Amino acid sequence: MSNEYEIKIKQLVGEISRSYEQEQFIVPPDLGPLPNRDVIIKITNKLRQLLFPGYFGKKNFAEETKEYHVGALVTDIFTVLSGQIALALKYNPKPQEDNSSKTLKDKAGQISFELLNSIPRIRELLATDVQAAFDGDPAASSTDEIVFSYPGIFAISVHRLAHELYKLGVPLIPRIIGEYAHNITGIDIHPGAEIGKYFFIDHGTGVVIGETTVIGDYVKIYQGVTLGALSTRGGQTLRGVKRHPTLEDGVTVYSGASIFGGETIIGSSATIGSSAFITKSVPSGTMVSIKNPELSFKNYF
Amino acid sequence: MSNEYEIKIKQLVGEISRSYEQEQFIVPPDLGPLPNRDVIIKITNKLRQLLFPGYFGKKNFAEETKEYHVGALVTDIFTVLSGQIALALKYNPKPQEDNSSKTLKDKAGQISFELLNSIPRIRELLATDVQAAFDGDPAASSTDEIVFSYPGIFAISVHRLAHELYKLGVPLIPRIIGEYAHNITGIDIHPGAEIGKYFFIDHGTGVVIGETTVIGDYVKIYQGVTLGALSTRGGQTLRGVKRHPTLEDGVTVYSGASIFGGETIIGSSATIGSSAFITKSVPSGTMVSIKNPELSFKNYF
Amino acid sequence: MSNEYEIKIKQLVGEISRSYEQEQFIVPPDLGPLPNRDVIIKITNKLRQLLFPGYFGKKNFAEETKEYHVGALVTDIFTVLSGQIALALKYNPKPQEDNSSKTLKDKAGQISFELLNSIPRIRELLATDVQAAFDGDPAASSTDEIVFSYPGIFAISVHRLAHELYKLGVPLIPRIIGEYAHNITGIDIHPGAEIGKYFFIDHGTGVVIGETTVIGDYVKIYQGVTLGALSTRGGQTLRGVKRHPTLEDGVTVYSGASIFGGETIIGSSATIGSSAFITKSVPSGTMVSIKNPELSFKNYF
Repeated sequence: MSNEYEIKIKQLVGEISRSYEQEQFIVPPDLGPLPNRDVIIKITNKLRQLLFPGYFGKKNFAEETKEYHVGALVTDIFTVLSGQIALALKYNPKPQEDNSSKTLKDKAGQISFELLNSIPRIRELLATDVQAAFDGDPAASSTDEIVFSYPGIFAISVHRLAHELYKLGVPLIPRIIGEYAHNITGIDIHPGAEIGKYFFIDHGTGVVIGETTVIGDYVKIYQGVTLGALSTRGGQTLRGVKRHPTLEDGVTVYSGASIFGGETIIGSSATIGSSAFITKSVPSGTMVSIKNPELSFKNYF
Repeated sequence: MSNEYEIKIKQLVGEISRSYEQEQFIVPPDLGPLPNRDVIIKITNKLRQLLFPGYFGKKNFAEETKEYHVGALVTDIFTVLSGQIALALKYNPKPQEDNSSKTLKDKAGQISFELLNSIPRIRELLATDVQAAFDGDPAASSTDEIVFSYPGIFAISVHRLAHELYKLGVPLIPRIIGEYAHNITGIDIHPGAEIGKYFFIDHGTGVVIGETTVIGDYVKIYQGVTLGALSTRGGQTLRGVKRHPTLEDGVTVYSGASIFGGETIIGSSATIGSSAFITKSVPSGTMVSIKNPELSFKNYF
Repeated sequence: MSNEYEIKIKQLVGEISRSYEQEQFIVPPDLGPLPNRDVIIKITNKLRQLLFPGYFGKKNFAEETKEYHVGALVTDIFTVLSGQIALALKYNPKPQEDNSSKTLKDKAGQISFELLNSIPRIRELLATDVQAAFDGDPAASSTDEIVFSYPGIFAISVHRLAHELYKLGVPLIPRIIGEYAHNITGIDIHPGAEIGKYFFIDHGTGVVIGETTVIGDYVKIYQGVTLGALSTRGGQTLRGVKRHPTLEDGVTVYSGASIFGGETIIGSSATIGSSAFITKSVPSGTMVSIKNPELSFKNYF
């Protein structure tokens, strides 16, 4: 670096450092280190290895060494995740809670164990999701192809993990995990959403499923579907209010349809057609479709 | 780890290990190791280096050392890809085939060589795709910018590779490659789709191109376009049936339009307007547009 | 490798190497090495560490060592970015400019410093963007959650960097940076777009913001919104012409709406409803919504 820039850069470093005191909203609180996004993403992928043995790890789960591999994976996840959860709890803005290091460490260990303890139950659910994808998609040539490559399965498996941590009251981490899946798949599921078994998202890009959405069993949705809030003008005053719809068992929602509102209930086995815009409840067993806008045809020749 | 958790985790490891026998659909078949997604993605990116010399690799292709670099890259791809294809073939569920290790290894080598042998032909096609992007997008300041950064070029170059492997009958790998491009670009092209030269996808997020789609030359499509199946209620019984549309030469499809059905043919040089919903064939040279829904204007003041 | 393939592959390597002379459009110009996409992405992430101290780096910015960390980061970015910009300038196709190595190196250093110099100003803007997200989204539980995980914040922070380099006339690099954010978030903002403060993109997948778009302050847009050009049939002849709309202060655009045309101005505080298709200016303070297509209800039973 030339002398000219050495001086200029020294000044600039001082300026940037001082600016770190000035901009609220983007300066982390004085509570020490925050959870680390890269570490959380690594743990998420190790949890996916645990959910789908033999698909994503480097090693095959041979019968004789299976418990050894699972043990190493579980121990690693428990230790690292507990550390990250402890940081997230320390960050937790609720001032009335006991924030002593010892209490937070204990609580983090409990939560980390709870998540790992839910793995067999999540695997039961995911097996139904994979079956739903196979049954519902003629392009699927095997269930293994689905596990390996379907973005819908990536999104729902990561969501089922994030949702456990959300229910356990962990700050920051569930959303980091959920938005990681959004990055990878284009499917945006808030960790708060409750989703039943045999759930299938086909293609998936552009799907949005809001925080207070409730989805039953055997539901199928396509790319570009929004399950959203009618209005968010209320901003933070709407926090905690049910703002997103409920889809009962067996509902199908075709591509590009939007369903809005916390009181909107799509009854069981209803079908919502492509690009429909729904803001009111739909009775069970109903097929709703839009009268497609009239087409005009002009010939160039 | 505290003693308390040591015991609990030991029990949990046993429980998870046992659950690996119980959930069908998400336990890999007893055929030994499956192909490795991370390895396949690395190979895909090496193939992109081969397709676009000097753009993505670490090294510049200087004239004197060019053959040396190409040789190293080709040999590496051949060896690793053959190994992955052999694993995929071994996995192949077709029971009537000869699955001896020797036969599979030979077949994998042949397929791997076939793919590499198609590189000059794929490069010819991609050169027309890059030209189509440059000619069609006023925001493009050079063809090099397009190669470096356009998601449409990423998607079509990876698709042209995946499509070769699909035609050669390789299980699992084509879809892993295709969904990798979907992850990166938001463009979902099934490896089965047949796509002609001078193909341009602008912006691209949300595009879906189904397995049995046929696309001619000089076709241009925009973000959010779906070339899909009318209904997939038939599930696996529809496997192999032409379910997705045909776009003849020179067709343009604007953003958010949907074209459905295996018997739907969009005639040459036709234009499909933004957000149109098409389920029937459109004659050649026709411009189809929707009568946009009436707008209502309200003033706040 | 068997002898059979050794010979075949040798021939193939020659064929591929020869094809590198034949396909125009995908052979880089004879100007030596091009900028390196991987290096540019690493620098982009280091710039994000500088923008959001303590969130993305490995280390916490403790008070006593803060200037030391900032200094190391700034020096590293300055050196590496200057090198990449020098390569981009050398590539620059404008033939009338002085392209001596010395001049380019000096110019690259200046530009690199200008970008770093804009960091405090960009941080001021980003603090308003984070506030806009918090105020506008009931699902946000803290501003830290937003910085960590919101794709809209990722996209706008990377855009504000790319836009500086775009204004400084750097070839190739701004678009590589912008399309990197597009890959991660599904939000496609051309580096040329001018965007005011307090800008919030919710969910974001499928958003397209064209090169000549102008956006005022306090603007909020949702997933699937296109701010596009009416027609690009003119191709490269339209380069430099204002083709994309202007959104004045306080405009809200709901999901899936499309606004097209360089002369289209959305007046201050106007609201554009979900899925509206706008090609003409809208007066200030107006709420535009589509009459939703009539729904048809059929009962299965």
